[in-house]
Amino acid sequence: MSMIDFTHDPAARCWVPGAQGHCDFPVQNLPLGMASIDGGASLGVTRIGDHVLSLPTIAGLMTGKAQEAARDAMGSLNDLAARGGDAMRDLRRQLFTLLTQEDHRERVEPHLHPVADAVMELPFRIGDYTDFYTGIHHAENIGRFFRPENPLLPNYKHVPIGYHGRASSVRVSGGDVIRPYGQTRPAEGEDMPGYGPSARLDYELEMGVWVGEGNALGQPVPIAGAGRHIAGISILNDWSVRDLQAWEYQPLGPFLAKNFHSTVSPWVVTMDALAPFRTAQPARAEGDPKPLPYLWDDADQGEGALAVTMEVLISTAAMRDAGHAPHRLSSGSMTAMYWTAAQMVAHHASNGCDLNPGDLLGTGTLSGKNETSWGSLMELSANGTKPIALPSGETRTFLEDGDEIVMRAFAEKEGCARIGFGECRGVIVGR
Amino acid sequence: MSMIDFTHDPAARCWVPGAQGHCDFPVQNLPLGMASIDGGASLGVTRIGDHVLSLPTIAGLMTGKAQEAARDAMGSLNDLAARGGDAMRDLRRQLFTLLTQEDHRERVEPHLHPVADAVMELPFRIGDYTDFYTGIHHAENIGRFFRPENPLLPNYKHVPIGYHGRASSVRVSGGDVIRPYGQTRPAEGEDMPGYGPSARLDYELEMGVWVGEGNALGQPVPIAGAGRHIAGISILNDWSVRDLQAWEYQPLGPFLAKNFHSTVSPWVVTMDALAPFRTAQPARAEGDPKPLPYLWDDADQGEGALAVTMEVLISTAAMRDAGHAPHRLSSGSMTAMYWTAAQMVAHHASNGCDLNPGDLLGTGTLSGKNETSWGSLMELSANGTKPIALPSGETRTFLEDGDEIVMRAFAEKEGCARIGFGECRGVIVGR
Repeated sequence: MSMIDFTHDPAARCWVPGAQGHCDFPVQNLPLGMASIDGGASLGVTRIGDHVLSLPTIAGLMTGKAQEAARDAMGSLNDLAARGGDAMRDLRRQLFTLLTQEDHRERVEPHLHPVADAVMELPFRIGDYTDFYTGIHHAENIGRFFRPENPLLPNYKHVPIGYHGRASSVRVSGGDVIRPYGQTRPAEGEDMPGYGPSARLDYELEMGVWVGEGNALGQPVPIAGAGRHIAGISILNDWSVRDLQAWEYQPLGPFLAKNFHSTVSPWVVTMDALAPFRTAQPARAEGDPKPLPYLWDDADQGEGALAVTMEVLISTAAMRDAGHAPHRLSSGSMTAMYWTAAQMVAHHASNGCDLNPGDLLGTGTLSGKNETSWGSLMELSANGTKPIALPSGETRTFLEDGDEIVMRAFAEKEGCARIGFGECRGVIVGR
Repeated sequence: MSMIDFTHDPAARCWVPGAQGHCDFPVQNLPLGMASIDGGASLGVTRIGDHVLSLPTIAGLMTGKAQEAARDAMGSLNDLAARGGDAMRDLRRQLFTLLTQEDHRERVEPHLHPVADAVMELPFRIGDYTDFYTGIHHAENIGRFFRPENPLLPNYKHVPIGYHGRASSVRVSGGDVIRPYGQTRPAEGEDMPGYGPSARLDYELEMGVWVGEGNALGQPVPIAGAGRHIAGISILNDWSVRDLQAWEYQPLGPFLAKNFHSTVSPWVVTMDALAPFRTAQPARAEGDPKPLPYLWDDADQGEGALAVTMEVLISTAAMRDAGHAPHRLSSGSMTAMYWTAAQMVAHHASNGCDLNPGDLLGTGTLSGKNETSWGSLMELSANGTKPIALPSGETRTFLEDGDEIVMRAFAEKEGCARIGFGECRGVIVGR
């Protein structure tokens, strides 16, 4: 499934000024997004260094499937992604050629725009959003609050656990996140629940997997080839309120604790761009049960994980006033996933559920083994009992109004161009 | 909020042949749906007796908001419903006038089509589907399997429990329902889970509440007036597989056990049509806690429930071969709802979650107190331990391939026209 080709050549030179050197978006990346440029209509774009390049307006410079895909990138990336993995790979290759060969420069350059002129939008019209729970160390950390002896439930290593989230409240990076109100468990000795603004607002460091080509209702997606149904990956912040969650979630799972806002980064990094960073699955331990056949692809295993570094930073209002840079709370990796993105897709469709282009599949919070890599405040503050010190002299257990959370992700290794995801930002505001 | 007007007059005479007498769709009903007539494009329609009347093609006979709403009924009812409760009431009144005054007959009649010429479609483009758990007797019946002493969890009478479902796999009445495959709990003494077609496929008798006018992210919907955000109600069969559910649902709730297929009846019966059937809430007992203020509307309470009868029938392949009529499994009522449709809307948006026109809110399974009104086979067969006898001599604990489930609903009382919902059907087939 993985294919390394000329588009991964770390020595390739791109003629776009400023697209060389240590940046998230060298020519080997070519992520997709939706943007309004200078206030215009929503167009599909790719990013190269500090510029965006609109796809429909350069479709005439391409041929075949790539041209059709580029023409489809209007309003959302749904139609483009529906064309499937082959068309997306074709698009990548032709974009790479246009941006590395000087003789195309004259015709392409007029369609490049400084990123500052582009307002990034949600990349897809999201039909359904599903959140998985593939971060095994997170599942252990949370499980330990309830079952210290036996934090993982018996199904965890057999079933890629997931649940449905809310598609309507997914927003692109950069917006305000309004602190939700809700019910909380009755205080000791009280009969009635509390009600008011959540006092335990948290982030969750996840990655979001975008579905490309879908499947018809009743037609599962075989695990071999499930990866070809993935259009790409963004950073996902699955904002959560722990006090509402604790009171509402039995017996049917999280609801209002999660659906008030979810934030995705604007750039969809393709599986092709990430191909050099496929790696073994360290989250799967010796002696773990072999997944059932519908989840097991002999050809894929051994490189099903992605070596992508993820980090989360906080910047409080006081920190910004005092000129402090954002403070890093933790840094982890996508290798914390117990189930791969392809397994998420195959499991989701295994009962016949139809996936559609633009569906969003969250990985679940990706915490590493060590505290320095835990992906939520609930874990880092030991459920609010251990305040975290910030450079401003403030402390945090959960988020306060004015706090900004910044998530970043990137893949980097010797002999490869760096592939970055950009940022996923949100500022907490009171209602 | 409730308003009885001339459109509820039981003595009103409609000039459409066959629309009088005991039927689901007298002129006092005027439900909305989407249909392809004689193979044409999807048009919004209303139903009168055994005919459908297309809305966009008679928009010219209407005025003001009703005319705009009728013109919008193309492709789906979303744009029509987005216009809100006032526009929908206006549309109802003008349709009623057109269909009861003989002098309009000549101009309207060419737009009436026999229902047999119409292929009914999903009424809305569903953005998000949420399933609630408002059926208190169902919650007790299910809870009793786990906690015989104390079946209801402590949050039940404070929080309208709900969770997100899958929008993509909702289908209109009449389609095949493909039996899902999936994992089941390891057998006694085994390490590995089972895998195969579900052996415990069940229906759930619910009603589906359609959102009309939505709300912006971060802007709750006050309980007073929440009912005006409801476009109408259909029958909902929330097909479920109990064996997959038992194994997968901890800790995040149902997932593949529910998302393989959900069926709605095609007709959206408006809250205005149901106004005469508003009634007290028998599910709420003396001494129950008063809901928190965001869920309590003094003006509304006392008539927040709907006296709608619901029934579920089965027809097996052998029954059809032997000429047996469908066999009624149970009959219950929407008064089993502990939380009203308005409370579902207000709660859902209380944290700031944005609802959109065409969102579907399931009531949850509506079982009554007595066994004759239980809304699932899991309840009727005591979790598969008590086979149900059918007129063909067969028995059922759960559904077998070839079984058809038919759900019906209607409101009826002295001095009112009968308001029917039609049928919600689905046949189980193997993969």
